[in-house]
Amino acid sequence: MSKPQPIEYANASAEVRAVYDDIKASRNLPDVNNFWKYLANEPKTLRRTWESVREVMAPGALDAKTKEMVYLAVSATNNCGYCIASHGAAAAKAGMTPEQFGELMAVVGMANETNRLANGYRVPIDPAFDR
Amino acid sequence: MSKPQPIEYANASAEVRAVYDDIKASRNLPDVNNFWKYLANEPKTLRRTWESVREVMAPGALDAKTKEMVYLAVSATNNCGYCIASHGAAAAKAGMTPEQFGELMAVVGMANETNRLANGYRVPIDPAFDR
Amino acid sequence: MSKPQPIEYANASAEVRAVYDDIKASRNLPDVNNFWKYLANEPKTLRRTWESVREVMAPGALDAKTKEMVYLAVSATNNCGYCIASHGAAAAKAGMTPEQFGELMAVVGMANETNRLANGYRVPIDPAFDR
Amino acid sequence: MSKPQPIEYANASAEVRAVYDDIKASRNLPDVNNFWKYLANEPKTLRRTWESVREVMAPGALDAKTKEMVYLAVSATNNCGYCIASHGAAAAKAGMTPEQFGELMAVVGMANETNRLANGYRVPIDPAFDR
Amino acid sequence: MSKPQPIEYANASAEVRAVYDDIKASRNLPDVNNFWKYLANEPKTLRRTWESVREVMAPGALDAKTKEMVYLAVSATNNCGYCIASHGAAAAKAGMTPEQFGELMAVVGMANETNRLANGYRVPIDPAFDR
Amino acid sequence: MSKPQPIEYANASAEVRAVYDDIKASRNLPDVNNFWKYLANEPKTLRRTWESVREVMAPGALDAKTKEMVYLAVSATNNCGYCIASHGAAAAKAGMTPEQFGELMAVVGMANETNRLANGYRVPIDPAFDR
Repeated sequence: MSKPQPIEYANASAEVRAVYDDIKASRNLPDVNNFWKYLANEPKTLRRTWESVREVMAPGALDAKTKEMVYLAVSATNNCGYCIASHGAAAAKAGMTPEQFGELMAVVGMANETNRLANGYRVPIDPAFDR
Repeated sequence: MSKPQPIEYANASAEVRAVYDDIKASRNLPDVNNFWKYLANEPKTLRRTWESVREVMAPGALDAKTKEMVYLAVSATNNCGYCIASHGAAAAKAGMTPEQFGELMAVVGMANETNRLANGYRVPIDPAFDR
Repeated sequence: MSKPQPIEYANASAEVRAVYDDIKASRNLPDVNNFWKYLANEPKTLRRTWESVREVMAPGALDAKTKEMVYLAVSATNNCGYCIASHGAAAAKAGMTPEQFGELMAVVGMANETNRLANGYRVPIDPAFDR
Repeated sequence: MSKPQPIEYANASAEVRAVYDDIKASRNLPDVNNFWKYLANEPKTLRRTWESVREVMAPGALDAKTKEMVYLAVSATNNCGYCIASHGAAAAKAGMTPEQFGELMAVVGMANETNRLANGYRVPIDPAFDR
Repeated sequence: MSKPQPIEYANASAEVRAVYDDIKASRNLPDVNNFWKYLANEPKTLRRTWESVREVMAPGALDAKTKEMVYLAVSATNNCGYCIASHGAAAAKAGMTPEQFGELMAVVGMANETNRLANGYRVPIDPAFDR
Repeated sequence: MSKPQPIEYANASAEVRAVYDDIKASRNLPDVNNFWKYLANEPKTLRRTWESVREVMAPGALDAKTKEMVYLAVSATNNCGYCIASHGAAAAKAGMTPEQFGELMAVVGMANETNRLANGYRVPIDPAFDR
């Protein structure tokens, strides 16, 4: 096995093309992003991941912008460069302003800091938070 | 040094009491949570963390509920038990419904999954996301 | 101190060369990978890490391919780009097929997702798993 | 919102019961684990996660034991206590011996160590691993 | 929103320039690093982060070199490439020798390994460490 | 396989007892900690881990207290409860004062915060840090 390679539409199986077509139609894009082209190496993962993302990211009790900002917050915490770039773009497209991005990053930074302070000081959960 | 111990108001220095008083007044609570009582072992950290949290979590371009949900998303990603409990309570107090909590966790789970798929498949950033 | 630099065989001490020779002989390679050339800046770390890796990765109760796939799973979880590349190659050399890589990544993604769902929902351990 | 609570079969909706029934039948168990009882607070997450886990963990190019060991490796890396306990039990049920568990943990430990050595020494990817 | 862009001094607001001036004076540098130029997109985050870093990193009960080495240890654990590079340079400037860097990385690697062994073996805390 | 169980000296093999004896003699303790009693389930891991820890944690270019503080910093970042407790005790025994613990945690928190700010803002490495 060499390094994973992207699967372009022209070289894709019918199964993969069906997923690509659905992504392009759902998002009104001329082509799918690299993420999907690499997942296409495992068509079952491609299909399952797309169906899950489509369901999870659809507006519901939370709107699309909030969901994309949460995605970005997790990706910055995990330092996934690809995901920070792609979900940063998606959040902006969904309406996140530069000011909101700035406040989002401030919360992400603060949470990562206080998570470790709570760990290091071995803080027990307050009874009020445990019922 | 034994295990860190909480500093109760009755035993706190004037410097620590001043921060406790500000937290209680700002949040309209009869007592501060364990997190602050443990940080009080290092009064400078107590004061700086409180001032930062107060500034970062104040409603601005993002509302308080969104900020608490992002905090919770990061805490679940990092598996900080204390923070999941305390910011879960804070998010609920700020208006997060059980349905919104459910969708939040779904996004957090999905982001953690796709972050690793992007890593493992070594997906390069699309040019459109890199400018 | 500038950025760490690799130590090539020609410039290596006798102590470092001895480790390089052992790595090359054990793995039947003409040269050692960058990882070892950088660790050589601290010869004790080079020797100890090599001896540990050689012992841990030797086939035993688990075969070499399974061990390399586990290494890759951890590296994708931690997003270590170097390690994903080098252990991806090592796993393939040990016999991992593209289909197995695809299923491996699917499991890694799923585990990272459900780890956070378990954290966020604060799921207590079932008594059956705790004895 | 108080702390998440488990949904027992007796109190579950028809939608949730259908998933519980499928889990119990697929795994030949008298009851579902706590993980599913907590996810049931969000029925869509329950159904989607179960369908994904069932597909991903089914034997394919990798056997069930290998998949459970990879799940355990990721969970130990992320320190998800619930997942370590439940997938440790699942791996054992799928045939992992104590000796295999010991070697698995040795690989997980070593990978976590060398991941950080590669990060800290800023090791560039060898050209051979990058094509 | 496009990709975040750095704010150069010439284009900075008075509020941002004041922070830049303080950083340059405190550290005796002709210009601020990229980190600050990007944070400047959110002036409140820039100011708060700088004030916090200045307070936390000032010599106190721990000297500057020890603090920078701890910063580097955390950054290598989290795989933040920017932070490894910048705090590696800062630690060296504060007096860390190549030998000390080597031993630091050895400790970081070992801690990351044994953290996962403790997780995976589900080791309970000894009573002596819990009081 | 049930949950891992500790191996007490009375029930240990000669190989395990030899490691236990070395740990007790080196550290002047009447018994080994739980960590070693659990690793003893895999005698090779027990021996290799002890030999590595003994070598890495020995005073050298860095003193024992600094090494234990770095260990604690990593463990707080990874949220390993056992390791925070045991290396917190070890650091205190090596001379870490409560004031030093407080400053250590402040640095750990700050590093975890700024690591994510650098990720989220996609800050490129300054040329000065890259040579």
